[in-house]
Amino acid sequence: MTTTRTKTTFAPPVMEARRWIAGREFPSSRPLINVSQAAPLDPPPDGLRRHIAETSINMPEAHLYGPVLGLPELRAEVATRWQTHYGGEIASDQVAITSGCNQAFAAAISSITSETDEVILPTPWYFNHKMWLDMQGVQTVPLATRDGLLPDPKDAKALITKKTRAIVLVTPNNPGGVEYPAELVKRFYALAKKAGIKLIVDETYRDFDSRSEPAHELFKDPKWDQTLIHLYSFSKAYRLTGHRVGAMITSADLLTEVEKFLDTVAICPNQLGQHAALWGMRNLGNWLAGEREEILARRDAIQTNMPLLEAKGWKLLGLGAYFAYLEHPFEMASDDLAQDLVKRAHVLCLPGTMFHPEGSLDGKQQLRIAFANIDAAHITGLFARLAAYDPPAAR
Amino acid sequence: MTTTRTKTTFAPPVMEARRWIAGREFPSSRPLINVSQAAPLDPPPDGLRRHIAETSINMPEAHLYGPVLGLPELRAEVATRWQTHYGGEIASDQVAITSGCNQAFAAAISSITSETDEVILPTPWYFNHKMWLDMQGVQTVPLATRDGLLPDPKDAKALITKKTRAIVLVTPNNPGGVEYPAELVKRFYALAKKAGIKLIVDETYRDFDSRSEPAHELFKDPKWDQTLIHLYSFSKAYRLTGHRVGAMITSADLLTEVEKFLDTVAICPNQLGQHAALWGMRNLGNWLAGEREEILARRDAIQTNMPLLEAKGWKLLGLGAYFAYLEHPFEMASDDLAQDLVKRAHVLCLPGTMFHPEGSLDGKQQLRIAFANIDAAHITGLFARLAAYDPPAAR
Repeated sequence: MTTTRTKTTFAPPVMEARRWIAGREFPSSRPLINVSQAAPLDPPPDGLRRHIAETSINMPEAHLYGPVLGLPELRAEVATRWQTHYGGEIASDQVAITSGCNQAFAAAISSITSETDEVILPTPWYFNHKMWLDMQGVQTVPLATRDGLLPDPKDAKALITKKTRAIVLVTPNNPGGVEYPAELVKRFYALAKKAGIKLIVDETYRDFDSRSEPAHELFKDPKWDQTLIHLYSFSKAYRLTGHRVGAMITSADLLTEVEKFLDTVAICPNQLGQHAALWGMRNLGNWLAGEREEILARRDAIQTNMPLLEAKGWKLLGLGAYFAYLEHPFEMASDDLAQDLVKRAHVLCLPGTMFHPEGSLDGKQQLRIAFANIDAAHITGLFARLAAYDPPAAR
Repeated sequence: MTTTRTKTTFAPPVMEARRWIAGREFPSSRPLINVSQAAPLDPPPDGLRRHIAETSINMPEAHLYGPVLGLPELRAEVATRWQTHYGGEIASDQVAITSGCNQAFAAAISSITSETDEVILPTPWYFNHKMWLDMQGVQTVPLATRDGLLPDPKDAKALITKKTRAIVLVTPNNPGGVEYPAELVKRFYALAKKAGIKLIVDETYRDFDSRSEPAHELFKDPKWDQTLIHLYSFSKAYRLTGHRVGAMITSADLLTEVEKFLDTVAICPNQLGQHAALWGMRNLGNWLAGEREEILARRDAIQTNMPLLEAKGWKLLGLGAYFAYLEHPFEMASDDLAQDLVKRAHVLCLPGTMFHPEGSLDGKQQLRIAFANIDAAHITGLFARLAAYDPPAAR
């Protein structure tokens, strides 16, 4: 039998982690602290939930098929707001709405690659990116990051071959948390442009960037759309993870290709979710600013608590977006450690091995803490549990 | 440059057809009759719209991520109802919920094939099936149908090679409308089982089958899940096209593979749509029975009006589900004809060329009429326009 497309890749890490806690009971005195998934635990604010309800009742067409590339009003709204934020010129036909940002990535890759092509991905990487590249028969070329989990364009340049089609950056980074400096992003853009390949910039966590200025100036290049594929998610900003709405911004020509993929895999993004995203952008600006402050406060709480772990030999490798990326001091590999943390510390987080090539040693000392779901008090509790933890071998 | 995945296939036919009418005005005395897309034009019934609204307000978790393979209650409900309907045994872990039935097909193909594998598709075929196979590097092996647009298992057997991974049946058929006899489906199942390949049966239009008995008995084979991949859509039955909810029923083992694909392309089906589908199944049984009666009445109206067209040399090749599949008498190729019908008859339908291999002569005489959107009176009007039509060359 063939090795099918799906057999070329691994099981979804988040579902794998869910299996570690399945059937397990945690006492109320020491409940599970789940920092495995980058997802809000609270629903969208009341106003947005009411808007979805009213749309269901009052807008018949919101239940029916819409255009493959998304609602025209939503595409136009994104174009206008992005243009204001980043500078440069962005037209609504350079914007596609997708059923979540994962799907935007999948559509982008299928529109620019074929079997045996190569795509450069900094490590630690976002596992769903690796999974899609595997399933498409595209070779993932890992780009090891340097100090502060930052990739170096010179290293990337050395990896480019005739088969390279794109470099992918995620900023703020998942899983590393790190915010890539605008200047670094610009150097990657220049490299991609010169090499005639695409630069995919996934900005899912854009709204929680600690910097007040735009994360990069790429849209200011009048020819940005020939090199840049920008990806975005409405899921985190407006707590719409269950509605599946994301976006891709690139050339209208490439979106004609993307349309083929989206038509076949989704037909159209779900309509209520799109109306929710549109309403969110138009009405929740202040609310979102408050959300960002809260995430930044939690990030501060991580930093405040970090000395407790550092005293035990842990290190903070990256911090930002929804994530703290930690180096642990134990001889145990992180996949074993993560499972033992469930059992003995009642903490669920993802091991670094899930963000690195199979067999690589890099991930074995690392853990990703998705801290967006827990407030400052719980962060203190989490760090106390981690500081108190000793692996079985050490006892 | 590479021929990218998307470059290996054609533009979405429904979007292409939309471009034919873009910017064109139709007088109110002779408005456009749009029979191009198989989609309800009316929204779901009030009760269902209210249920969606109430879920948005009252169920916080309906806005957040859910399991990749769908809501457990919905999977269980499908399992129970399908078991009752078809006989046999179906467990909820043999059911996956997908973001529409197109996605179910995509997930199935990616879980059972790889580059250069082959899949057998009867012609005329559903174009999104062909598009996905193209984009996955899978060879589509066309299986020409015989009288009544029925495929013959003997013909299929002759097409099976070492690279064949599946045969795909759509019943009731899109675009042909024809309901495959249970006995015929059984023979295809036996062929697939013996050859050790999968039989994919897409039953998107199941709820509008004119027969009172189940469409097949495949689930009664205790080992059905080793051969059968059944696909379903909630879009047509409950008018939920804008919510993107479909289903796949097959072995739990294969669904573990499917989970990788769905996690990467969608993360989860949108949650409100799943709650809508669940409520629909539990509360709209009688309503759906009425919908079916209405579709069957429209089908009767096609038959009543057909002699008018037959007098002009047209033929009815297939009728059922949402579709009448016609043979036209003109020397003009159907893709030219369809565009001329927009201009001069104010009728938008899809040409047979969209359902056949590129360059094949078979589709040139054929048109698909998606009649579900127009009532009996409009069907009479449509047929009057078609009967009055003469192509440019004949004038």
